[in-house]
Amino acid sequence: MLKSLFFPKSVAVIGASQQPKKLGFEILANLVKSGFKGNIFPVNPTAENILGLKAYPSLNHIITEGLEVELAVIAIPAKAVLDCLEQCALCGVRAAVIISAGFRETGHAGLLAEMEIAKLADQHGMSVVGPNCLGIMVPGSCLNASFAADMPIDGHVAFMSQSGALCTSVLDMSLELGLGFSRFVSLGNKAHLNELDFLNAWESDDDSKVIMAYLEGIANGTKFIEKARKITKTKPIIAIKSGSTNAGSRAVSSHTGTLAGSEQAYEAAFKQAGIIRANSIRHIFDLIIAFAWQPIPAGNRVAVITNAGGPGIMATDAIERFGLRVAGLSDETLQKLRKALPPAASVLNPVDVLGDALADRYEAALGIVAKDPNVDAILTILTPQIMTEPEKTAEAVLKASRDSGKTMIASFIGGQRVKAGHDLLMANHLPNYQSPELAISALQAMHYHSVWRSEPLPVFELFAIDRDKIRQVFSRVRQDKRLEIGESEAREVLQALDIPIPLSKLCKDPEEAADFAESIGFPVVMKIASPDILHKTDIGGVRLGISGRQEVRDTFDLITLRTQRFMPEADIWGCMVQKQVQGNAEVILGMNRDPQFGPLVMLGLGGIFVEVLKDVSFRIAPFSRAEAEAMVSELRSSAILYGVRGRKKLAINGIVETILKISQLVTEFPEIVELDINPLTVFEDGKGVMGIDMRLVLSSQNQEFKHD
Amino acid sequence: MLKSLFFPKSVAVIGASQQPKKLGFEILANLVKSGFKGNIFPVNPTAENILGLKAYPSLNHIITEGLEVELAVIAIPAKAVLDCLEQCALCGVRAAVIISAGFRETGHAGLLAEMEIAKLADQHGMSVVGPNCLGIMVPGSCLNASFAADMPIDGHVAFMSQSGALCTSVLDMSLELGLGFSRFVSLGNKAHLNELDFLNAWESDDDSKVIMAYLEGIANGTKFIEKARKITKTKPIIAIKSGSTNAGSRAVSSHTGTLAGSEQAYEAAFKQAGIIRANSIRHIFDLIIAFAWQPIPAGNRVAVITNAGGPGIMATDAIERFGLRVAGLSDETLQKLRKALPPAASVLNPVDVLGDALADRYEAALGIVAKDPNVDAILTILTPQIMTEPEKTAEAVLKASRDSGKTMIASFIGGQRVKAGHDLLMANHLPNYQSPELAISALQAMHYHSVWRSEPLPVFELFAIDRDKIRQVFSRVRQDKRLEIGESEAREVLQALDIPIPLSKLCKDPEEAADFAESIGFPVVMKIASPDILHKTDIGGVRLGISGRQEVRDTFDLITLRTQRFMPEADIWGCMVQKQVQGNAEVILGMNRDPQFGPLVMLGLGGIFVEVLKDVSFRIAPFSRAEAEAMVSELRSSAILYGVRGRKKLAINGIVETILKISQLVTEFPEIVELDINPLTVFEDGKGVMGIDMRLVLSSQNQEFKHD
Repeated sequence: MLKSLFFPKSVAVIGASQQPKKLGFEILANLVKSGFKGNIFPVNPTAENILGLKAYPSLNHIITEGLEVELAVIAIPAKAVLDCLEQCALCGVRAAVIISAGFRETGHAGLLAEMEIAKLADQHGMSVVGPNCLGIMVPGSCLNASFAADMPIDGHVAFMSQSGALCTSVLDMSLELGLGFSRFVSLGNKAHLNELDFLNAWESDDDSKVIMAYLEGIANGTKFIEKARKITKTKPIIAIKSGSTNAGSRAVSSHTGTLAGSEQAYEAAFKQAGIIRANSIRHIFDLIIAFAWQPIPAGNRVAVITNAGGPGIMATDAIERFGLRVAGLSDETLQKLRKALPPAASVLNPVDVLGDALADRYEAALGIVAKDPNVDAILTILTPQIMTEPEKTAEAVLKASRDSGKTMIASFIGGQRVKAGHDLLMANHLPNYQSPELAISALQAMHYHSVWRSEPLPVFELFAIDRDKIRQVFSRVRQDKRLEIGESEAREVLQALDIPIPLSKLCKDPEEAADFAESIGFPVVMKIASPDILHKTDIGGVRLGISGRQEVRDTFDLITLRTQRFMPEADIWGCMVQKQVQGNAEVILGMNRDPQFGPLVMLGLGGIFVEVLKDVSFRIAPFSRAEAEAMVSELRSSAILYGVRGRKKLAINGIVETILKISQLVTEFPEIVELDINPLTVFEDGKGVMGIDMRLVLSSQNQEFKHD
Repeated sequence: MLKSLFFPKSVAVIGASQQPKKLGFEILANLVKSGFKGNIFPVNPTAENILGLKAYPSLNHIITEGLEVELAVIAIPAKAVLDCLEQCALCGVRAAVIISAGFRETGHAGLLAEMEIAKLADQHGMSVVGPNCLGIMVPGSCLNASFAADMPIDGHVAFMSQSGALCTSVLDMSLELGLGFSRFVSLGNKAHLNELDFLNAWESDDDSKVIMAYLEGIANGTKFIEKARKITKTKPIIAIKSGSTNAGSRAVSSHTGTLAGSEQAYEAAFKQAGIIRANSIRHIFDLIIAFAWQPIPAGNRVAVITNAGGPGIMATDAIERFGLRVAGLSDETLQKLRKALPPAASVLNPVDVLGDALADRYEAALGIVAKDPNVDAILTILTPQIMTEPEKTAEAVLKASRDSGKTMIASFIGGQRVKAGHDLLMANHLPNYQSPELAISALQAMHYHSVWRSEPLPVFELFAIDRDKIRQVFSRVRQDKRLEIGESEAREVLQALDIPIPLSKLCKDPEEAADFAESIGFPVVMKIASPDILHKTDIGGVRLGISGRQEVRDTFDLITLRTQRFMPEADIWGCMVQKQVQGNAEVILGMNRDPQFGPLVMLGLGGIFVEVLKDVSFRIAPFSRAEAEAMVSELRSSAILYGVRGRKKLAINGIVETILKISQLVTEFPEIVELDINPLTVFEDGKGVMGIDMRLVLSSQNQEFKHD
């Protein structure tokens, strides 16, 4: 709950100043102006009093008077902050907001100082916001502990922002819209408290019904997803994520590595956490006012009531484009509308009350449509025609909203002529948009949230995989001073995961190869087996479709000779002889570790689909069966797997189980930093899949890599 | 120019009324209020004078006084309109605006009346707007011939709208934004003048620098594209198109038919005409203010100046997403910025002048960046921090704009605190947006227009096709009372177009088939040849990979027997024996006639690409070689044709020429209503293409189908 931070009984402003325009003055003035009920203590080495409040030279002086300080707001030079915080701890301060800048943004020393701040806070159980932030604001406790110029309206949106500057814009826009906040937090450099701590605090906070966030980076991706996933089952989280954090310069050699960037990881993370992503500041407000002010619609059936045909068409276009449904009105509704409206009116949805409609005609139509059980949400459109009554129409919309309890939004399109109506709607928390499309976009987000909420939390299945065998392979590879695992070793991993593999054997000489090939039946595939050759195909070390004993012998000699010519010092173990399998499709399954979210698992159809069309889907492991199934269905080319136009349905279930096993593998073995199964051959439905080739890369740290 | 409509010397209001709130009163009042300089004549059967103007019982009465009426505004019951218009013609009226409703929107009789209106107008050379419209407004001639409640500001945007109701919203919003219009036209039912006439009028109209349109349907798609394509080479056209006009219930059996809807036709038409499409009312204003107020940027290099990091990142994200470039500032600029800004400021683009920047720091940065030859456009971002000076900063932006002449836009993000700055910018025609993304989206549209403008008008190549041969085939088919053309007849059309086809022959018996197969070499393909069987594959009437004489004989008998069993009365011509060709890829090329725009040509890669991924591109014929090339490059899977990852480059040129020949064919032969070449086999670059199979459908009208 972070009670000491948001509802302190007393606040000290350390660095309070007597000079207007100085931060230490503005912060103190804000506290006083906001009407904070508890004690306010200016701390200043020389002043006697500031703004009529008794000033103290230090925290100690306050304490020794028998007074308590619960929250400290710190606005002193960076170099003095750590000592000051120590003082806070000694004086029993429970929470601190460090406004001061001059930390990690100035270099390494600043970063170290932040680590000290975090250590100190943890040792003493203090909650510390910042440094380098605007501060925090809590209208419900009349607390403005910031240097923002205004105080937000009281309301139910909890906001956190990684950009202090953006806070000022958001605040200013919210005042214009009349949008209220329960919490308003500038995160700053997040030395101690970060986005995860605030999610934790707001999870069970009844003041906060919607969480709004501006994020640039996330400190602990895994835990963030886990927490957000739970919260969004009861309250919506709407976020802007900006900035493409570069995954760095680590060379990536896998398919997954080249396709899986930070943006893909965020997309997957937000999807798995049920977070709704806004694409601009204006867009986030469009969404937030709907979530904060209106009930979540029970379904996706939208009715439109309009006094103009054109915008009505635009609305229905948008309803279809956003995947909602144009509500089919009941016969009863249609009959009533026909009676209530002039003959020229259109009673089919969108209901056109005609250009000369006064408010009473809107009221009649709204009353009828709102009662239709086939309608989940109503959009009222108004264009300011000569007799139109925007304000009275707004009243009619508000009345219908009160009476029906259904989700209601509006699009009164215009400027001054619709202003009175717009203002009345907004003041009564009925979101009004300048374009029908924006209104529908907000409804779509609400419907998305409603569907998400109805789905259970994911269950992570555990398969009986042979962990010991996998550990053995890894330690054998490490003893050999290698990090890459391919071929026969990777096959052992596939076996340990109980993923079918084609019959094969590492053969030491041509005769052994010929014997084995004959025993499994032709055609066979042969590959050079050498720990020193990573890209076998490039040097002609792989041959397909070998169909007789003599060809096996010839091929053995040919690819061995080629390898020796290519790399005379290569360690050659022999040739891998493998049953050549003919499936119905091939998929690629991969994993790459994202610096923020950890194991990012990728699925794509083989060949051109991945290479040319980049038709791939991502999830962050671990994930549920439903999410693995969604990875398949999200592929644009998924119809190839499901079987369309006379194609057979393929073994989707086999793909899904393989994805889940990989999800489990990379979760249980954090030392795997990269992995590709390429291809995973897919047979007809019921006949399963087969892992033909696999590559893994282990972390260079010998110990397990902890993503934390 | 429509001079009599927009700049009449005198106006008569027919149906002028003495009762306020009546249309006939409001229109007259608007004319008087707007300060129209010429004569205004109220026409009313009984009134002596209205609003202080002498009223006349009829037009005749005006004329007989020796006075002239140039424009008539008609607001009388629908049934009296036609007589009234006749009267206008007799009295020498040059233009009319019919406000009255009650025409095609009420049924067939109304549509017939509109046709009479058009006939009458054409006979007498009158220009008639409407009926069922809001009217027209021309601030430049102080003419408000409408029942709109306000008059727009004078400016350079010419607007036409197919929805009168939307006109009122657009007008109201424009007043709020301070956006001015040169012409403001409510099109109504378009009985006489339609969107094309206004394009014609505004093409060389110097008052109108930007054309803005709200369209629901287009009367003459072909001419509209042709005209718009010319106009957009000098002035931008920005349009909203709403409503998906259903192509009707005509059964479509071709690939193209199922994929080519009205939406695809509009997309192609707007693209080929260089029209910029807005996706909502709010969006069109976002675009229009940039086009109307700022110079088109010389290139795509954008500099961002901001007092906040977060929104700066959001802007650069948007620049990349919209395909523009983050300008790389010159060394000189960087040096100067370093000198002018505090050490903590970031001088790399986005230039961060820091949160405590006053207007002077913005001014310094703007002055330096605006001089950089590497910068084409500048976005200034402002968040209202404690010392920020929005109004003075706006002044600095305006100064830089005046001094440099470069494209400047702004995003002062907030509400009341940025209002003075926002208002100052907008009043001085510097577009300000609530989100950086919206500003960048406007810049992107301007850059698109600039690139479009720099490209020459398309040239339609003409190939030496054998028109006589094609005509012969068509007339033979028609004599046979058929409309579908396939197989051997379609092969003749391909030959007439000089598109290579595989060797083949219609063979009458098994022996002839075997002889021919041997002469062209195995393998061959065999297909049943019957004008009664459309879907040969479905009945087992096609066999591939036939590799010997005996197999040819067997297949002949087999597929003949099958066909007889399937349809005993089928007319069987024999079997088509064809060389089986093995290309490197297959494409599908098709055409379908769109009711508004005519021949819509489609290209896609064969098989799953079209069937599953719906990866297709469209253009309306005729089009240029550059556009045919763009049809190839727009395919998501085009890399398969261009050759990537070790694939060979294929005969793109062969595809492009085939597309162009089809474009020419369907343009010269409007009786072709549908066409598919499926597949067009593509070989390696230099080895061309081959049309394997083609189907055409002719119009059921025996005469040529004119799309007009």
